[in-house]
Amino acid sequence: MTSARAHLKQLFLPVEDGMERMQAILREQLVEHSGAVRDMTSHIDRFRGKQLRAALVLLTGEASGNTTDEHATVGAIVEMIHLATLVHDDILDGAEVRRRVACVNQRWDNQVAVLLGDFLYARAFGLSTTLSSRLCSRMLSETTRELCVGEIEQSTRRYDFEMSQERYEMIAGAKTASLYAAACELGARYPGGNEEVGAAMARFGWSLGLAFQIIDDCLDLTASTGELGKTAGTDVEDGKITLPVLYTYTQADEPTRARMRDVFTRPGLENRAVLLRETCDLETGLEVARERARTLVGDCLERLQRLPVSPARAAMEGIVEFVITRRI
Amino acid sequence: MTSARAHLKQLFLPVEDGMERMQAILREQLVEHSGAVRDMTSHIDRFRGKQLRAALVLLTGEASGNTTDEHATVGAIVEMIHLATLVHDDILDGAEVRRRVACVNQRWDNQVAVLLGDFLYARAFGLSTTLSSRLCSRMLSETTRELCVGEIEQSTRRYDFEMSQERYEMIAGAKTASLYAAACELGARYPGGNEEVGAAMARFGWSLGLAFQIIDDCLDLTASTGELGKTAGTDVEDGKITLPVLYTYTQADEPTRARMRDVFTRPGLENRAVLLRETCDLETGLEVARERARTLVGDCLERLQRLPVSPARAAMEGIVEFVITRRI
Repeated sequence: MTSARAHLKQLFLPVEDGMERMQAILREQLVEHSGAVRDMTSHIDRFRGKQLRAALVLLTGEASGNTTDEHATVGAIVEMIHLATLVHDDILDGAEVRRRVACVNQRWDNQVAVLLGDFLYARAFGLSTTLSSRLCSRMLSETTRELCVGEIEQSTRRYDFEMSQERYEMIAGAKTASLYAAACELGARYPGGNEEVGAAMARFGWSLGLAFQIIDDCLDLTASTGELGKTAGTDVEDGKITLPVLYTYTQADEPTRARMRDVFTRPGLENRAVLLRETCDLETGLEVARERARTLVGDCLERLQRLPVSPARAAMEGIVEFVITRRI
Repeated sequence: MTSARAHLKQLFLPVEDGMERMQAILREQLVEHSGAVRDMTSHIDRFRGKQLRAALVLLTGEASGNTTDEHATVGAIVEMIHLATLVHDDILDGAEVRRRVACVNQRWDNQVAVLLGDFLYARAFGLSTTLSSRLCSRMLSETTRELCVGEIEQSTRRYDFEMSQERYEMIAGAKTASLYAAACELGARYPGGNEEVGAAMARFGWSLGLAFQIIDDCLDLTASTGELGKTAGTDVEDGKITLPVLYTYTQADEPTRARMRDVFTRPGLENRAVLLRETCDLETGLEVARERARTLVGDCLERLQRLPVSPARAAMEGIVEFVITRRI
């Protein structure tokens, strides 16, 4: 386990029992009689990740004095939706298949990945219909819609260097922050009521998720694949114009802009992220992005101050810290 | 409008008002503020199709004396789930993208098609959470899981000439009949109760859906693309071994079997369905498949006899007839 993961495990201690139950529910949900499906879900481990969102359901509940037996199930549902989005993120379009043919796993081809993601969504929604309150089904179907809209918007904004920062945040918010917001709101108010605390925790989750995405976008430009545990530089490969690049482009002179566009779009280039770093000075853009993430994280910490002191609140402060300082 | 479509429209007359409300709900659900999404959902028309499943929700309700204001919504949800599966059916895997590069619509690439399907699922589940009863959410999340499992099983059985007929029907049932069964069961018993009538109508829907799929598999081998309104011969291209082919293969001598396998698998072949028809005599296999569909349809008609005589029941008899005689 990396030290970062060990650190997170430490932070999840106040909800250790809940996390264990959450994981048991997750395992149970991935069991399927069909041999073919079982074969696939057993490979889902590679997507498991940090399970931050499930931990936030449990910690937010604990920190706001709203704990139920069903919180672990809500956490598992949130993780399943997140898993489904990750599996579908792996779908390649025609151009990418051709470009990255060596990476395409022949066994788990696109069609099967689509179906596995759909299976996870169906399982998640199915599980939510077994809960005593419909709040979880309602909020998470709405959030899933928002996730999709964010991803579709992002996809249509590829290579759009003229995008405003506001638009960038709208997209990052919809595709990432919305699920954090839903996780925190559900933690604070599931099975219902507590609308005010719920709304406050939703805003906490939104800011945290947005900061998470901005740091993710910075890491994609600066970290190595080895550090990241996933392929670095994919945003540049995919034509996703993230905040650091957007800012750099806005401030650059026209010859630099032309070189930046060229690095993103010229067919056949390799290691575009490395070329981009050679083409322009990303440092100021990265610093502006990190500063924006720090502001968001400040907002998170301020909101936490309004909750009573507790181990769960302290853990949430630790998670906020982790999001801004993380290298994974 | 083709005469087949006009005929269906005629059959839907006993639930004309409900179908109109269903369509209005469908249109409303596809409205999205995001310009990018709106752009896409407006193109969904090409998937609209026959709306048989929604009609079955309404007709089954009507024929079994179980009508509510919410039946039109249930019908719209069933159609949205069907639409989502059609959109995701269009996803190509790596090999296909390379083979069919000319057909890949550059604008609606794989990623966007995945997201649009996810958006439709999310909308469908979201809409189901607004209904007074949770039965629809529960049944349709379960059915969606079953659909996915069927499609995954099918995908792992490509080029499997040794598959049993039982396995073929299990897959066809899961991927197609399950949604027909759910539509008919929901029609007969939504918002709850009436379990016996519900179970009978679920079996009616299952047999009808299975017959529908078997005829679909026959048409894919025999119809022209022009007649079908969608590309014919795709099962052969995709390596899907359907009932007529399965039967033919079982009865064939080894040299014919070898030629059949070759037509399915040799790289670079064009018009595999045409080549297949030249390679072996599919007629007996097609007749066996049609006979199986007729048996299933007989079961459907028998079940309908137990419902009181009504225009809705007569329309359902017409739909059963349509499923077995259709050319689209």
